[in-house]
Amino acid sequence: MSEQLITKEENYSQWYNDLVIKSGLAENSAVRGCMVIKPYGYTLWENMRDVLDRMFKKSGHVNAYFPLFIPKSYLSQEASHVEGFAKECAVVTHYRLKQSDDNKGVVVDPDSKLEEELIIRPTSETIIWSTYKNWIQSYRDLPLLINQWANVVRWEMRTRLFLRTAEFLWQEGHTAHQSEAEAIEEAEKMIHIYADFAENYMAVPVVIGTKSLSERFAGAVDTYCIEALMQDGKALQAGTSHFLGQNFAKAFDVQFLNKENKLEYVWATSWGVSTRLIGALVMAHSDNKGLILPPKIAPLQVVIIPIYRNEEQLSQVNKVAENIVEALQAHNISVKYDNRDEYRSGWKFNEYELQGVPIRITIGPRDLENNKVELFRRDTFEKTLIDKDNIIDKVKSLLEDIHNNLFNRALKFREDNTTKVDTWDEFVDVIENKGGFVSAHWDKTAETEAIIKEKTKATIRCIPFNNPQEDGVCIYSGKPSNERVLFAKAY
Amino acid sequence: MSEQLITKEENYSQWYNDLVIKSGLAENSAVRGCMVIKPYGYTLWENMRDVLDRMFKKSGHVNAYFPLFIPKSYLSQEASHVEGFAKECAVVTHYRLKQSDDNKGVVVDPDSKLEEELIIRPTSETIIWSTYKNWIQSYRDLPLLINQWANVVRWEMRTRLFLRTAEFLWQEGHTAHQSEAEAIEEAEKMIHIYADFAENYMAVPVVIGTKSLSERFAGAVDTYCIEALMQDGKALQAGTSHFLGQNFAKAFDVQFLNKENKLEYVWATSWGVSTRLIGALVMAHSDNKGLILPPKIAPLQVVIIPIYRNEEQLSQVNKVAENIVEALQAHNISVKYDNRDEYRSGWKFNEYELQGVPIRITIGPRDLENNKVELFRRDTFEKTLIDKDNIIDKVKSLLEDIHNNLFNRALKFREDNTTKVDTWDEFVDVIENKGGFVSAHWDKTAETEAIIKEKTKATIRCIPFNNPQEDGVCIYSGKPSNERVLFAKAY
Repeated sequence: MSEQLITKEENYSQWYNDLVIKSGLAENSAVRGCMVIKPYGYTLWENMRDVLDRMFKKSGHVNAYFPLFIPKSYLSQEASHVEGFAKECAVVTHYRLKQSDDNKGVVVDPDSKLEEELIIRPTSETIIWSTYKNWIQSYRDLPLLINQWANVVRWEMRTRLFLRTAEFLWQEGHTAHQSEAEAIEEAEKMIHIYADFAENYMAVPVVIGTKSLSERFAGAVDTYCIEALMQDGKALQAGTSHFLGQNFAKAFDVQFLNKENKLEYVWATSWGVSTRLIGALVMAHSDNKGLILPPKIAPLQVVIIPIYRNEEQLSQVNKVAENIVEALQAHNISVKYDNRDEYRSGWKFNEYELQGVPIRITIGPRDLENNKVELFRRDTFEKTLIDKDNIIDKVKSLLEDIHNNLFNRALKFREDNTTKVDTWDEFVDVIENKGGFVSAHWDKTAETEAIIKEKTKATIRCIPFNNPQEDGVCIYSGKPSNERVLFAKAY
Repeated sequence: MSEQLITKEENYSQWYNDLVIKSGLAENSAVRGCMVIKPYGYTLWENMRDVLDRMFKKSGHVNAYFPLFIPKSYLSQEASHVEGFAKECAVVTHYRLKQSDDNKGVVVDPDSKLEEELIIRPTSETIIWSTYKNWIQSYRDLPLLINQWANVVRWEMRTRLFLRTAEFLWQEGHTAHQSEAEAIEEAEKMIHIYADFAENYMAVPVVIGTKSLSERFAGAVDTYCIEALMQDGKALQAGTSHFLGQNFAKAFDVQFLNKENKLEYVWATSWGVSTRLIGALVMAHSDNKGLILPPKIAPLQVVIIPIYRNEEQLSQVNKVAENIVEALQAHNISVKYDNRDEYRSGWKFNEYELQGVPIRITIGPRDLENNKVELFRRDTFEKTLIDKDNIIDKVKSLLEDIHNNLFNRALKFREDNTTKVDTWDEFVDVIENKGGFVSAHWDKTAETEAIIKEKTKATIRCIPFNNPQEDGVCIYSGKPSNERVLFAKAY
């Protein structure tokens, strides 16, 4: 556990992978592209899920559950949707195994072939809209504001823990509305909820914007996204919310009687965030000593470690520590007291630094004589001796400080790494050598976008909401443009 | 919504199916055997899951997540395990679709055939024990107390909403221990946690016992279970906990260095409950008017309905109702005020009776003059006028009363429908005509058990824990026996 990590500077990608594994968040499984989310990582996910779930419910959404399987013909119903997902579909073709003829193992029973193949959901628009058809008759049935927590499968060829895995966990909201305006409002509301979550819980600043046509969700009229900047200067799409127009309503013939008693197709949105968010927060905050977890969702907010030379000192420290544990828990602060005797305190320091626990409290007999304990903050490595009796207030305000510091640090990094450029040479240079977001004019054609991507690997991350209008010329084609968009290489 | 249900007496099976659908718990999906869990049903599941999750965590377990897919060779590793599940496995064979040659749709791309087929997990022992191999080296790594909330797939030929579906939601605990005794203790502890949950949250009395060899989980040394009795006299297995011995440790070569520094195979348990529990509680409590939900897990504990003749009365009632809503919520009681004007109050009464909301409060101007409101309890249809100012206390104690009444009613039903029999004729008669649990002597052979099942469809539900020892003779074979076991027809 306490082996050194490779540094970010040496190899960012390997640093990330090692960190995720060594800190106990996740590991690769025996199944290609699928990960095992280990208890520490899963607790982090639970904390994120619980906050998001409360936000969804507070904004009027309810949860439901739809089948894992999608009949192949359903997936094909919406043309651009199936085109977007066909290349990464896990397909169920049989429903039984049998003993092999040579009795040496089991084989797929050819007699159990399905009449129609089933796709493991890569996303659930099609199965859900085929269901909504029966749920929606009149405007009185609208809006329908439903969310699902589920696993989905997209057969990616190159996978990375959390960032891109064949199976991942996510939530997907699927809402139905009577009017275009109401659906757009919903899609916008949800991308703002995601931004709120990213910034105020994950301490990750994000840019909210609209995707270009080429980067849109397969089947959407408009895709809104939140984009975060990682420490290596690459962008990461952290969440998306789609205005689907009437595309899925038309594909599945979902009409409703409006207030004027006329049949009309329903308007739709869908929106999702996934376990990918964990990758985002690891890459936004961590350092060469390990994870630095944002306090509001950290599985463990405080760890207490005793310093002692003999049994008597330990038992003295134990008493104090147990009182502190109780007091912190009474204030809903998650805390662990690690007085395992088989590990040295130095080893424990390294271990909890690797795991990114925001605050470490050390308690030793010397300090206790003066009624003091030591607080250590993971983000800055600062230590302070504090009065034992003030511990609740100090811990609370320190958790708040750490959150703010993480956010501000990441925000400053993003500001330092967002560059306005006006020429093609400058663009190539910044993308290649500095990285980060590049704010540049673009002629709004998919052709130019594709050429830029081919030449530099940079994609348009988004056209920010409330983007200032400004006359300029496209950095590649020289054609006129009225606003800058954000380019970056991305995960 | 307010159409009559068919009665239980007319057709229990159809009554159940209609009730699940009409009350909004779930419905069949377009995918054979898979259900859609609707928002009302999913909220019920969330409430059950949250209570169970707290119980698991309190007893030292943590959650994690393992892959949906199991390589075919892994499933085959434990001989009796694969034999038990081979016939109901959904198999993924390909990972890509492509445009068909005639351009008329998508087809499975034959070039995307997997080298090794993947099974959708029917249960996760094999993928989890293949992972534990890397997590366990020494006794210091034990016990490992892990739970997973997940979807699983068992390709059942005859399915019924909640009771038996191709895909279902469940939790599965998988623990690893240094000694046989510790593993057995864990398996027993978990079946008692399930019993606690069934009785004290679902208000469903259960018998705790051990399965006969024929009814054991595929791969277990011993299976413990909780068995509940449904209103039609059939039993339902509501949860199981397995002592797996060293079977999976041996299959996946998971050994640990014990305190004597010797290599030893790890001891295992697994245990699970699923969305099937929802079927159990529907069939334990409901009546011909609809669901009767146990108060502690009901999605909605209280509904408030206004009685009024004009706008003025309604606005007067609204004010009172909103205060009551706030007061109840402040006491963590879930409540909805339904003052929709487009539905008559009689329609609303029927609707919430169908949905099984434990308490209905009606507020009308006449009662308000005397500072009274009316409480209606769903389980007994009793109405009481109470002083408005006592509402919190009254609602709290009534919720408690309803829970107790549901439990006691179901317990009395089970007692009335548990019959001791000593002869074969009597056995056949009771199984055929009265139903319920039949307590009878059995010679402990699988042969007799199989014949009894073939002749009567009755199976041994369990050998109860702490079963009184009593000399007798097997009802079928006449051979000596030292204890009675519980037979029943079962879901």
